[in-house]
Amino acid sequence: MSNDKKYELLYWPGIPGRGEFVRLTFEATRTPYLDVSNQVEGGIHQILALKDEKATWDADGNPPALAPPALRVHGEGKKGGALVISQTPAILAFLGEKLDLAGSDAAERAWIQALALTALDLNNEAHDTHHPVSTLAYYEDQKTESLRKATDFRETRIPKFLGYFERVLKGNKEGQGKYLVGDKLSYADLALWQVVHGLKFAFPKEMKAREEAGEVPTIFKTFSPSVPEHGQLKEYLSSDRRKPYSKGIFRHYPELDRQ
Amino acid sequence: MSNDKKYELLYWPGIPGRGEFVRLTFEATRTPYLDVSNQVEGGIHQILALKDEKATWDADGNPPALAPPALRVHGEGKKGGALVISQTPAILAFLGEKLDLAGSDAAERAWIQALALTALDLNNEAHDTHHPVSTLAYYEDQKTESLRKATDFRETRIPKFLGYFERVLKGNKEGQGKYLVGDKLSYADLALWQVVHGLKFAFPKEMKAREEAGEVPTIFKTFSPSVPEHGQLKEYLSSDRRKPYSKGIFRHYPELDRQ
Repeated sequence: MSNDKKYELLYWPGIPGRGEFVRLTFEATRTPYLDVSNQVEGGIHQILALKDEKATWDADGNPPALAPPALRVHGEGKKGGALVISQTPAILAFLGEKLDLAGSDAAERAWIQALALTALDLNNEAHDTHHPVSTLAYYEDQKTESLRKATDFRETRIPKFLGYFERVLKGNKEGQGKYLVGDKLSYADLALWQVVHGLKFAFPKEMKAREEAGEVPTIFKTFSPSVPEHGQLKEYLSSDRRKPYSKGIFRHYPELDRQ
Repeated sequence: MSNDKKYELLYWPGIPGRGEFVRLTFEATRTPYLDVSNQVEGGIHQILALKDEKATWDADGNPPALAPPALRVHGEGKKGGALVISQTPAILAFLGEKLDLAGSDAAERAWIQALALTALDLNNEAHDTHHPVSTLAYYEDQKTESLRKATDFRETRIPKFLGYFERVLKGNKEGQGKYLVGDKLSYADLALWQVVHGLKFAFPKEMKAREEAGEVPTIFKTFSPSVPEHGQLKEYLSSDRRKPYSKGIFRHYPELDRQ
């Protein structure tokens, strides 16, 4: 495959993971991008090089990344080379401005950034339910701690975060329950949508019970169904570019769900 | 105390916590600010109102915050009111641009944001060493899990993160070991400095052993001593505006340190 695309996503192959937040900004705005590890033969080596623990500033003058995802933007680095940005919230802030997903003024830009960070915090906490004491150890080797962490997550953290986003959605009259800020799609909407989607996969009983109890109705009944109406998201979600959940952030371990 | 200051920090009183990253940007640039809960009688009620679980968009048109810190900026909200921004990385990105702590172009701005986010990730992981399974429960009620989490943190996470920042510092020739990006102070430098300082308090044996073994010498010998030379930081660090560590993010539990 030739690479004439301005934007390249550098992330692990085969899982949604943190790369998904970046993919959704492209798909929601019909922006061409190359998903390197999924679309380029041997692309995985670029991801391994990115996180190599000996890597230092690259030939284009970019600092190394601690971990994927990273975004490569051709022509926008120092001296016209490639710019490489790591850290999901930094990538989203950058793309938000480029792709008109960051609101209409400086205030909205700051709020959207804060709301996306909050959705990403929930994403991180969902990850920690199956890796509460060590990111390197297997889930099976920290299962006792996971059971306790997941219970706390389901009972106190899910309602706290979702209740918060429900208040933001309901209080933004312009958004009609479809947008967190203003009257148009932002990358914070995409981030929240993805986390809610992932939670439904990882904790189906917990999320179904809350939905059936009438909790956070704006999120479940208005927001979640409306986000995929943007750009080519619907087509994307049923394509093979959308990867299934597996051993990534959102994992379905029945024992961690509501019993 | 009269309040004629443009910037107000809304955070818990008496601890450095996540508010410290914001305070350091003001002190490093000699920017006047009001530390509401520490400097205004009854100021704590403003922090409690901020995180009230019934709060919705405020009279100035700002969305609610999930948690402190937040920054209030007079005159920059919608219709000239106060702008309120939550989430530490969003506050730092905003102030970084205002206070010339965000580099000299769009590439440096993105890198600085990513590096600050990485330092804040390390800060969050340090917090989780004493609260690995529940943020609401006491440390004493999750001590078994904490011992395991802290061991993993000390043995795998501290060297991973500090090794990464060492590579960034060494590879940035312009910075001479004093700056992560370019040849001047950024909010990423301040964030990294604060996390290293906090780690020395929480895990003194671990950090001393690594320093004496000659690990990450740029961080220990060049970077950490040079950051306080900026603005009024030296004066600040010996003033009573700098709060002591106690029951916040960085806690010294001897049993969690290297034995």
